[in-house]
Amino acid sequence: MARIICTGLGPGNPDLMAVRSDRLIRGATQVAYFRKKGRKGQARQIVEGMLRADAVELPMEYPVTTEIPFDSPEYIRLLAEFYDDWANRLAAMEGEVIVLCEGDPFFYGSFMHLYTRLIGRVEVEVIPGITGMTGCWNATGTPITWGDDVMTILMGTLPEPDLIAQMASSDAIVVMKTGRNLPKVRRALQSVGRLEEAWLVERGTMAGERIIRLTEADEADCPYFAIVLVHGQGRRPEVAQ
Amino acid sequence: MARIICTGLGPGNPDLMAVRSDRLIRGATQVAYFRKKGRKGQARQIVEGMLRADAVELPMEYPVTTEIPFDSPEYIRLLAEFYDDWANRLAAMEGEVIVLCEGDPFFYGSFMHLYTRLIGRVEVEVIPGITGMTGCWNATGTPITWGDDVMTILMGTLPEPDLIAQMASSDAIVVMKTGRNLPKVRRALQSVGRLEEAWLVERGTMAGERIIRLTEADEADCPYFAIVLVHGQGRRPEVAQ
Repeated sequence: MARIICTGLGPGNPDLMAVRSDRLIRGATQVAYFRKKGRKGQARQIVEGMLRADAVELPMEYPVTTEIPFDSPEYIRLLAEFYDDWANRLAAMEGEVIVLCEGDPFFYGSFMHLYTRLIGRVEVEVIPGITGMTGCWNATGTPITWGDDVMTILMGTLPEPDLIAQMASSDAIVVMKTGRNLPKVRRALQSVGRLEEAWLVERGTMAGERIIRLTEADEADCPYFAIVLVHGQGRRPEVAQ
Repeated sequence: MARIICTGLGPGNPDLMAVRSDRLIRGATQVAYFRKKGRKGQARQIVEGMLRADAVELPMEYPVTTEIPFDSPEYIRLLAEFYDDWANRLAAMEGEVIVLCEGDPFFYGSFMHLYTRLIGRVEVEVIPGITGMTGCWNATGTPITWGDDVMTILMGTLPEPDLIAQMASSDAIVVMKTGRNLPKVRRALQSVGRLEEAWLVERGTMAGERIIRLTEADEADCPYFAIVLVHGQGRRPEVAQ
C-alpha cells in the first residue's frame, strides 16, 4: 500500500526548501511531479541534482494546458479524468511516493486535486513550503506587511470590478495568475491609485529573477506565474476594543 | 564590520526551516533574537539543540510588552529607543551575526524595525521562512485556497466594522493577533455567516499543537499568537477578459 508524501518545494531556490522535504527528496526511490507535455517541468527542475540515481520518476503530464478554454466542459472533464487516473495509480503503488509541488501544496496548489482523491484511501502527508509570493516579496528586499496592515491575495483572472473593490480596501496586495491579465490588473491598480507603488516579480529567489516596476512592464511579455506586489505601509494598530 | 543575516525560522517545527537557515544557524558564532524579559523566547526555543557550544548569544529583550498600552507615546518611544540601540550594537559587531526570526521576517516580523535601521549601513540579508499561518493551515489538513479564491489576512486588533467589511468580501480568511480580540473576531465572523466554518489553531506544526472549531474556543483562553482560519471553497475561475 502506498504512502504519499507531498513536499512543498518553496519558491524555487532549492536552498529554501524545508529541511524535512530536502531530506525526503534526497532519499526518495519514487518521485512524482506535474508537468506540461514536452517540458521538463518546474518542480522537477527545482530538485535537479538532488535525486538518487536509482529513483523512479513519475512525470504526471497534464492532458491539456492552454489549448482549450479552462472553463469549458471538455477541459474540466479531461482534468478530472487525469486526476482520477493518477490518484488511482499512486494509490496502487507500493511504499513511499514523494510528490513534488512548487510553493506550498495547500496554497493554490495542483496537488489538492490528488489530495482530495487520495485522502481516506491511503496515508497522505503534506509538508508545507515557502509560498511563491513569499519568495517574491523577499526578492524585493522590502517588508510586505507592518503593524495592522490588511493583506489581500487576488487572482488576475478575477473580473475587473472585483479586483478594484478588493484593492481599494487593502494595504498590501498580491496578484497571482497575471500573464495576459496584466493590462486588467494594471488598470485596476491605477483606478485605486496604487499603480506607481506596484512591482512585478518573476522567478523570485531563482536564477533569472527579475524585479521591475509594474509601470515599466511590457504587457505582452508577462509570464502567467509572475506576481504583482504592492507593499503595505504599516497601518497603525488601534487599541483593542 | 558586521554582516547581518536574518533567518526566517518558519512556523515552529525546526524541520520546516529552510535548508539555508538550518545550515547558517548550526554554523553561527553570533546569534541574536528577540524575547520578552524573563523568558527563554520562542525563536531561541525553536533552535534548541542546533547552536554551536561556543556560539555567543545576544538576547534582545523588549523593554515593555503588555505593561503599558501599545499606542501610548511612552510605549512608542521605548520601542524606538530599543530598536535604535540594538541596530547600533549589531552594526558595530565584527563578522557574521545571525538574527533569528519566527515565521517569515518580512511578513509582520519584528526584524523589520532593525532592518530599516541597518540597511545602507551594513550588509543585511534576509532568508525567507514558512509563515506561521502556512504552518497553521497545513496543520488543519485542508487546502486553504483553490481556484480563484480571494484570501484576506487580517489583524484581530482592527475595528469590528473593518473586520466585517473585509470578511464579507473574502473566500479564505486568516486572522492573526487574536488573544483578547477573540470575542470581536467571533462576532465579526458570525455577522458574515462564516463562524461555523472557522478554526482556531495554536502552535501549528509544533509540540502542543491544538486545532479546534472556533465555536468551541474558550474566549478567556486564547493566546495572542493563535490564528483563526476560514478555508476557501474554490471560487470558479472565469474566462479572462
